[in-house]
Amino acid sequence: MAPIKNGRLLFNDVPTGYPEPGKTTVYDESQTIDLDGMPLNGGVLIKILVVSIDPYLRDAMRDPSNKGYSAPFAIGEPISNFGVSVVLRSENAKVKPGDHLFGMYPFQHYAVFPSVDQLLLLKNEENLPWTAYIGVAGIPGQTAWTGWKEYAAPKKDDIVFVTTASGPVGSFVVQLAKLQGLKVIASAGSDEKVAFVKSIGADVVFNYKTTSTSEVLQREGPINIYWDNVGGESLDAALANAANGARFLECGMISQYNAAPYTLKNLMAIVGNSLHVHGVLIMQLLPKYRDEFYREVPGKVARGEIKYIEDAKRGLEWAGHAISDVQRGKNHGKSVIIVNEE
Amino acid sequence: MAPIKNGRLLFNDVPTGYPEPGKTTVYDESQTIDLDGMPLNGGVLIKILVVSIDPYLRDAMRDPSNKGYSAPFAIGEPISNFGVSVVLRSENAKVKPGDHLFGMYPFQHYAVFPSVDQLLLLKNEENLPWTAYIGVAGIPGQTAWTGWKEYAAPKKDDIVFVTTASGPVGSFVVQLAKLQGLKVIASAGSDEKVAFVKSIGADVVFNYKTTSTSEVLQREGPINIYWDNVGGESLDAALANAANGARFLECGMISQYNAAPYTLKNLMAIVGNSLHVHGVLIMQLLPKYRDEFYREVPGKVARGEIKYIEDAKRGLEWAGHAISDVQRGKNHGKSVIIVNEE
Repeated sequence: MAPIKNGRLLFNDVPTGYPEPGKTTVYDESQTIDLDGMPLNGGVLIKILVVSIDPYLRDAMRDPSNKGYSAPFAIGEPISNFGVSVVLRSENAKVKPGDHLFGMYPFQHYAVFPSVDQLLLLKNEENLPWTAYIGVAGIPGQTAWTGWKEYAAPKKDDIVFVTTASGPVGSFVVQLAKLQGLKVIASAGSDEKVAFVKSIGADVVFNYKTTSTSEVLQREGPINIYWDNVGGESLDAALANAANGARFLECGMISQYNAAPYTLKNLMAIVGNSLHVHGVLIMQLLPKYRDEFYREVPGKVARGEIKYIEDAKRGLEWAGHAISDVQRGKNHGKSVIIVNEE
Repeated sequence: MAPIKNGRLLFNDVPTGYPEPGKTTVYDESQTIDLDGMPLNGGVLIKILVVSIDPYLRDAMRDPSNKGYSAPFAIGEPISNFGVSVVLRSENAKVKPGDHLFGMYPFQHYAVFPSVDQLLLLKNEENLPWTAYIGVAGIPGQTAWTGWKEYAAPKKDDIVFVTTASGPVGSFVVQLAKLQGLKVIASAGSDEKVAFVKSIGADVVFNYKTTSTSEVLQREGPINIYWDNVGGESLDAALANAANGARFLECGMISQYNAAPYTLKNLMAIVGNSLHVHGVLIMQLLPKYRDEFYREVPGKVARGEIKYIEDAKRGLEWAGHAISDVQRGKNHGKSVIIVNEE
């Protein structure tokens, strides 16, 4: 077979505010690949099926001289994130053509990996769609599961406040809290999202764009557990309405990624209410919980015990738009790109 | 004996910035007391010997409609804080004249307490000065001891950063960390304070008014444990220079009590470096550690294993000045008022 195009989404320019498709990233089809003739040198040739679009990608889109919590993307190279691939050819005894692998992939159609040590073989006995493995049964679900288990320390009658509660992490947290019978206050950014969060069982759900977080928490709190994906004003309201000894699980601060830093007015509540604030970093927590997660969660999802929604776009050329949408909260459900059909 | 003056320091006016002696508080001698004839109704008459002046008094000097972490002072009433008294007369079988009691006292010379249940009998077998029991062997020492034991989780080769390191809490923390063989970076607000902190063993000591905290931490860090009495810019520098998994012990934010809130620029480090931020609230931790503390610490102090310095003023009429000095960092050593000699 003749070489075919290997479309890639390249990092093109460090954004100052929100990332812009076509400027921050460009879709490039100049590279070609010979799927049959490409030498593998003991490695594997994979076709990437799905990749995940997450808020934290913004962190890697920075000038490498600035500090961040993930490796910065290199200008001119494909951006990368978690995805699922299928093996086309293999010279590695551990995997065979047709196997599905979860891992960190460059945003392109095909790739040769010299080793599969960093990739996880997915058996998918529950027959979930592959996109589930980058959402509810992937890093977002694992973030919720491990963070909650490690830091939430839920007690009877605790009140939980979850932000971005229709997102893949937040909606999972809402359901974990409800499985434990706790009262859940949840915020989301549109009426459609609010409806979804209500449907998964949250007790008090509001659109933070039209309703004051601070007023809701004053009425429905004080809160014992705060799951923060937002930072800024929402964090400030949570600080002001935290119960003594409350646990704050800091998973992200998306309100701060594309704007000037917010000035917190209630930071002294950390001292005054003896709060416990923990940064939730999935890659550090995962080894402790990985086996348990893959043993329990795909089944729960298949049986409908954990619900999720997806916002899927077909075609890698739309990934730049999806990245921008996620930063602006325009997606509804876990944002994924379907790069290739099986 | 005829009634004598019972001088009191009254709360007079809610300050907007720094408290001002003569305005925020006024010393008043209009009240008299008949030490011999005063009916006790089953209680005790005490003479207050020493009272403690602490940064957190500022919190109680607020409009009661604003939230704080301590009970607000009432206008026209004496302010109150921890002190040591001696019993003059007692109708309570638990204490007798000459006994010394630690507890929360109004800022006045004499008082009748209907009960002694909230007061702690001090045996003082080590023969420490009474002021020690409101400093190194009082709430500040207990804050350092219990906070460190509960949250610091020190590991070999950890690097510790302590703010207000010449103060009664900070200097105790410095010594606890050095007793465990850790490298200690410490900040203080004058060259005299720096010299004291060096004398108690801190490895790197700097005057934060003349040296950039951020530069010191960049050179000497990253830090694993941060003891924060300051907040604001110092907290921001600690966030920027925190090691992965670092513990932040938030004990106070004195830079924020009399000023507009500082805008933190590095708050995302909580997520990115998986930090653990704990509010240290002594009254909640104390029950767990009280016995251990009184068993171990007065002896350590008497033997010189834990050193401290005091900034003592004689006369309750100077308490307003001492309060202002502590807010401005003008004291050098634990600020105490000697109200009466034995």
